[in-house]
Amino acid sequence: MSASMDIRTKSLSKPVNVAQYLFTRLYQIGIRSVHGLPGDYNLVALDYLPECNLKWVGSVNELNASYAADGYARVKGISALITTFGVGELSAINGIAGAYSEMVPVVHIVGCPSTISQRNGMLLHHTLGNGDFNVFADMSASVSCAVAKLNDPAEVAAQIDHTLRECYIKSRPVYIMLPSDVVEDQVEGARLDTEIDLSIVENEPEREDYVVDLILKTLHSSKKAVVLADACAIRHRAVPELTAFLDKTNLPVFVTPMGKSAVDETKENYGGVYAGDASHPDVKALVEGADVVLAVGGLKSDFNTAGFSYKTSQLNTIDLHSDHCVVRYSEYPGVKMGGVLRKVTERLDMSKLSVQKIAHVGPQAVAEKLEGADQIIDQKWFWPRVSDFLKENDIVVTETGTANFGIWDTKFPKGVTGLNQVLWGSIGWAVGACQGAALGAKDAGSDRRTILFEGDGSFQLTAQEVSTMMRHDLNIILFVLCNDGYTIERFIHGEEAEYNDVVEWKYKELVTVFGGSEQRTKKYRVNNKGELDALLNDQDFNDRKGMRFVEVVMDRMDAPNSLRLTAEASAKNNARRE
Amino acid sequence: MSASMDIRTKSLSKPVNVAQYLFTRLYQIGIRSVHGLPGDYNLVALDYLPECNLKWVGSVNELNASYAADGYARVKGISALITTFGVGELSAINGIAGAYSEMVPVVHIVGCPSTISQRNGMLLHHTLGNGDFNVFADMSASVSCAVAKLNDPAEVAAQIDHTLRECYIKSRPVYIMLPSDVVEDQVEGARLDTEIDLSIVENEPEREDYVVDLILKTLHSSKKAVVLADACAIRHRAVPELTAFLDKTNLPVFVTPMGKSAVDETKENYGGVYAGDASHPDVKALVEGADVVLAVGGLKSDFNTAGFSYKTSQLNTIDLHSDHCVVRYSEYPGVKMGGVLRKVTERLDMSKLSVQKIAHVGPQAVAEKLEGADQIIDQKWFWPRVSDFLKENDIVVTETGTANFGIWDTKFPKGVTGLNQVLWGSIGWAVGACQGAALGAKDAGSDRRTILFEGDGSFQLTAQEVSTMMRHDLNIILFVLCNDGYTIERFIHGEEAEYNDVVEWKYKELVTVFGGSEQRTKKYRVNNKGELDALLNDQDFNDRKGMRFVEVVMDRMDAPNSLRLTAEASAKNNARRE
Repeated sequence: MSASMDIRTKSLSKPVNVAQYLFTRLYQIGIRSVHGLPGDYNLVALDYLPECNLKWVGSVNELNASYAADGYARVKGISALITTFGVGELSAINGIAGAYSEMVPVVHIVGCPSTISQRNGMLLHHTLGNGDFNVFADMSASVSCAVAKLNDPAEVAAQIDHTLRECYIKSRPVYIMLPSDVVEDQVEGARLDTEIDLSIVENEPEREDYVVDLILKTLHSSKKAVVLADACAIRHRAVPELTAFLDKTNLPVFVTPMGKSAVDETKENYGGVYAGDASHPDVKALVEGADVVLAVGGLKSDFNTAGFSYKTSQLNTIDLHSDHCVVRYSEYPGVKMGGVLRKVTERLDMSKLSVQKIAHVGPQAVAEKLEGADQIIDQKWFWPRVSDFLKENDIVVTETGTANFGIWDTKFPKGVTGLNQVLWGSIGWAVGACQGAALGAKDAGSDRRTILFEGDGSFQLTAQEVSTMMRHDLNIILFVLCNDGYTIERFIHGEEAEYNDVVEWKYKELVTVFGGSEQRTKKYRVNNKGELDALLNDQDFNDRKGMRFVEVVMDRMDAPNSLRLTAEASAKNNARRE
Repeated sequence: MSASMDIRTKSLSKPVNVAQYLFTRLYQIGIRSVHGLPGDYNLVALDYLPECNLKWVGSVNELNASYAADGYARVKGISALITTFGVGELSAINGIAGAYSEMVPVVHIVGCPSTISQRNGMLLHHTLGNGDFNVFADMSASVSCAVAKLNDPAEVAAQIDHTLRECYIKSRPVYIMLPSDVVEDQVEGARLDTEIDLSIVENEPEREDYVVDLILKTLHSSKKAVVLADACAIRHRAVPELTAFLDKTNLPVFVTPMGKSAVDETKENYGGVYAGDASHPDVKALVEGADVVLAVGGLKSDFNTAGFSYKTSQLNTIDLHSDHCVVRYSEYPGVKMGGVLRKVTERLDMSKLSVQKIAHVGPQAVAEKLEGADQIIDQKWFWPRVSDFLKENDIVVTETGTANFGIWDTKFPKGVTGLNQVLWGSIGWAVGACQGAALGAKDAGSDRRTILFEGDGSFQLTAQEVSTMMRHDLNIILFVLCNDGYTIERFIHGEEAEYNDVVEWKYKELVTVFGGSEQRTKKYRVNNKGELDALLNDQDFNDRKGMRFVEVVMDRMDAPNSLRLTAEASAKNNARRE
């Protein structure tokens, strides 16, 4: 320790080291388990996890760990991932980019070479051999809402507090670079007595009132208003305000694919999934025939809108976002949806509001009486059948592919959390995210089931995450849809092409390979509707704890209709020339 | 097609489309198999692989594919990897960064959204949702020696030719961004009649002569000159010149860890591995006692020098590099090693050269008579024992960890190719690289065996690549060293720490899970020296084709001495404060 640092340290009232400070902050904001892999630049830091009451997940690889951190944050509110410089962080960067794209708060901490090694430009392992120690941080900066390089102990505590706040408030990843020689430097621990302020800044009242009045006027004069709940309502934590609004008004409400599980689907005013031309005709008619669409947290990406096929008019639309609102064509930058929704709910005069009754809208989200028990399981039957299987407060994770579209036709019981990655769409994500989600639920002290619907092709990318699920004895039901390859790609292009084939694995045997115990794991394969139906009705299957791994045999060219339509639109857009 | 494009196309003498042009060029430079995963932005391009005589590997995930492309290039000379925008390319970027760091020529082709979607900033899947379509190319630019965005058909052919040349000449990855609407645009196919010039520019003769004279003078006046072959001799294709020089002079020659297999280890003048303080004492004495060290393609990274522990003097050193030479402290930028070595060999007067005889130097690289057959296999015995097992022209891949250090003590038969990733050191790399290397050998029409030494912890990161090995029926012997976790990390820090533990898998059963046939795959587990010895002597094990998967049980705190020393140096450097 240098003389100047020694003086600085002596002036601290409650000295703690940088690792202790950082990890205590992670605990305070709600993190209980930390994903990641050890590497020599982060090892000393990892020593401090247990004393800060953080569990080390011990992930199998960094990409899976980053997906898991994403899933954990979606359930537990925020998450952390620790990797090592260069090799580790770059393996994770696709998962971080996904969290950035999809607005999920992940704290990515990278153990890096010492400040001295950096200053001297040493030719170290895990470098490009060019003495550039900022190159990876620069790459991550594009997919992070804040970057902190913890090089100067005098700045570290403030940097950490600021960065964690940014992560939570902006609901996006942050990148923290922690040099190996700084880990045990002392900082002021007294700061830890005050938790980081994670509240968002309220809207400027007069400005907010102006927007609220306009919305009230619009709603009061409407005859056929509907609400459309989308991704950002979930990601930017406006679900409580949305729920209060719906509870008061009972306006018909629809969700987008990314908005699924934002609203209570058991209520009478829930109408189903709206995604333009791929919607159920009744849903389409109601949303597109509305005279006001109150869109909460909209995110109009191609796969969330079935290829930009909305037929709603901006003249009938109120858009509420996390950082601005739009009423028809009038824009209100800086006016955030939470405050607006609260006031609209408060001030709405129900006597002036016309509320449509909707009934029997959307797909029959209840299984028909089982006929043809020996028939192959088709997507059309499967997803509504799942509705009956789900229980209150289940967590349902769906992979990009048939599952992300099929789930539109599954009606969620109360309290179900649905996770998908419709915008970023990185196949393999769901396996990692499922582990993180289940761990998040466990860390929250609940015994919620986490249920994963995964394609066989996608499963192969991140299959070893099943090992981590069992390491932590998580309460998971994993359905692998065995349909012989990349079915979603076959619908976009190359139905019979070799590049859409995968090797057929004995998927469920992985449970044994990864060391699953007889007691805490169970494997199943269902070949037809009857077998699946029986399994979903089986008490032991429903109630046992630990891993239940199910192979579901399906046809390779069977897909939900919504997928077919979206895939067609996508192929057209890829080839479009003018 | 627009009118202007129509006119341009009509003026082409032999129109081919962009995919055909690019893939024909890949074939011409020696690529036969292309690694990667399908994604909707690259599907149309993939249709053109078969007609250009390129095989699609059908990788299990992009990181593995990038590692495999790295291994393929190290054996076949150059390789290609096709991924999809955002999700696919970022999953591969760690492998690409490794190829950049380690100087391996990989052509990374990314299928991306159409130029029109890009211009319109559309909110597409696989984007960050911010309309920025250059963000991933910018990230890749840091780990690529050239970037080409194929947006304008008039430029495409020249861009491709330039980029592929850069890749080969600089021996580093390049990044090619291929928009989905450009794939089938027409370009001039007549250019394909002339292959891309991949020859390096010769040194300026007078300048080269000046350096050659200086080196000759130095060598002629030396008494105890030695040669030290390092990574860049291999990567920058100076091995033929090095071999000719050694064949003529018979000077004692040593290799660094990264230079292993650059020279014929069966020759009498081969002395073993030099890595500073971690070297065998006899090796250390010879190299550090030399009056001239002719270092060919030196790369003095921490793990390649056992923590910067060389005790050689620059006053005695001649450094030959791919883009400059240094004689003592005199530097000659732009003077490349190949030309210099050729002329030095030509002009060297053997009557003036003193050549030391070296004998019985380095570790006994032949197994002792087996005693204690029931003892646990230790690293000290294992690696020399492997020497006897290897055959001429085997390809030997070693993972970061105990294998990369242990292999110092294995003597290679003639023609063996050794692959490691000592500089970048991304664990899991070796499994992917092994697949690529074996496929490269197969594509070259040889039946070389590819032998992988892999740690159990590292294996878990990329285990599913075994599936691809079997999909292509590759000729692989895979040793998983089962020592219960990250042994190399335990030596650096945290011997008993939970974060260095991994879940114990039934590793060899993966062969069955991944669909390996009885006929073309075989599984083994060896628990002691006797069992391993018998297996290595077994005729069927040696000669059969396809996959041989061996679990080798070892002790968790057993490691080669060279690893212990390097790990100590690394821990010290990580904690160093001044």
